Amino acid sequence: MSRQIKADKNYTILTQLLQVADLFVKIREREMLSQNLSSTAADILFLVNAIGHDVTPAKITRMILREPNSTACILMRMEKQGLIKRTKNMERKNRIRITLTARGEKVLSQAMKKDGTANMLARLTVAQQKQLKTALKALKEAGRKELHLSPKMLLWP
Amino acid sequence: MSRQIKADKNYTILTQLLQVADLFVKIREREMLSQNLSSTAADILFLVNAIGHDVTPAKITRMILREPNSTACILMRMEKQGLIKRTKNMERKNRIRITLTARGEKVLSQAMKKDGTANMLARLTVAQQKQLKTALKALKEAGRKELHLSPKMLLWP
Repeated sequence: MSRQIKADKNYTILTQLLQVADLFVKIREREMLSQNLSSTAADILFLVNAIGHDVTPAKITRMILREPNSTACILMRMEKQGLIKRTKNMERKNRIRITLTARGEKVLSQAMKKDGTANMLARLTVAQQKQLKTALKALKEAGRKELHLSPKMLLWP
Repeated sequence: MSRQIKADKNYTILTQLLQVADLFVKIREREMLSQNLSSTAADILFLVNAIGHDVTPAKITRMILREPNSTACILMRMEKQGLIKRTKNMERKNRIRITLTARGEKVLSQAMKKDGTANMLARLTVAQQKQLKTALKALKEAGRKELHLSPKMLLWP
């Protein structure tokens, strides 16, 4: 019997995108199991390393679109696991700065190396990857406007 | 000061895709607040309606890539909210069939109408939307292989 698809075109693309995101997260979490690293923690390692300097918890919260409390919990766990360090900013003592430890850097570079998501992306041609990036950038911009988020949110990449 | 981006190219696309997925979910949840509907519940309304017939909890689990227990909880909540009905299959009594109630259909069509995610997607040209769909399809296929998922998983769309 054939399926009755009455579905809206936009809703279909949306569902596809969420499914791909779910697959990415599942693959990453499976690979990170041995390190006991969640997908969000891997995200944070990646962002802290990419931004490189003066990373505060507030900045991370804006980057990963979580509540400040939830970011604080994740950061605390990551510090216990020896992946990040929280140091006081010397000029502004109330401001905490997050940096990667040597172990954090090692875990991140391992994560990037064995990332099965790279195998997923390798199925796209270079031109398709470019198109995908362009589309995602436009969607992000539009989504940020839709939610009235400050341009500081999800600043990067 | 400029940022030191040492980031892997694939990891960057991955992060962008997850950010867009987060934005989609946030927008949808904001819109569904008045109906007390989670993003996953909206997904389920959409899938049950799209598949149309003989939808079982197991089928939904495969579609949304959740654990069976977690699907069961969500379905129970949705039944309490009057969005879906669980009926016993007359031929195979141990098999439960899920259908939308009139209220479920109404909530879904409202969700599709006011979906701010449509505004996001409207920023893409028709050609870009097509490219995006092609890329997502290839990524889904690749991700399914990577995780050794049965072809029945995430069957649709």
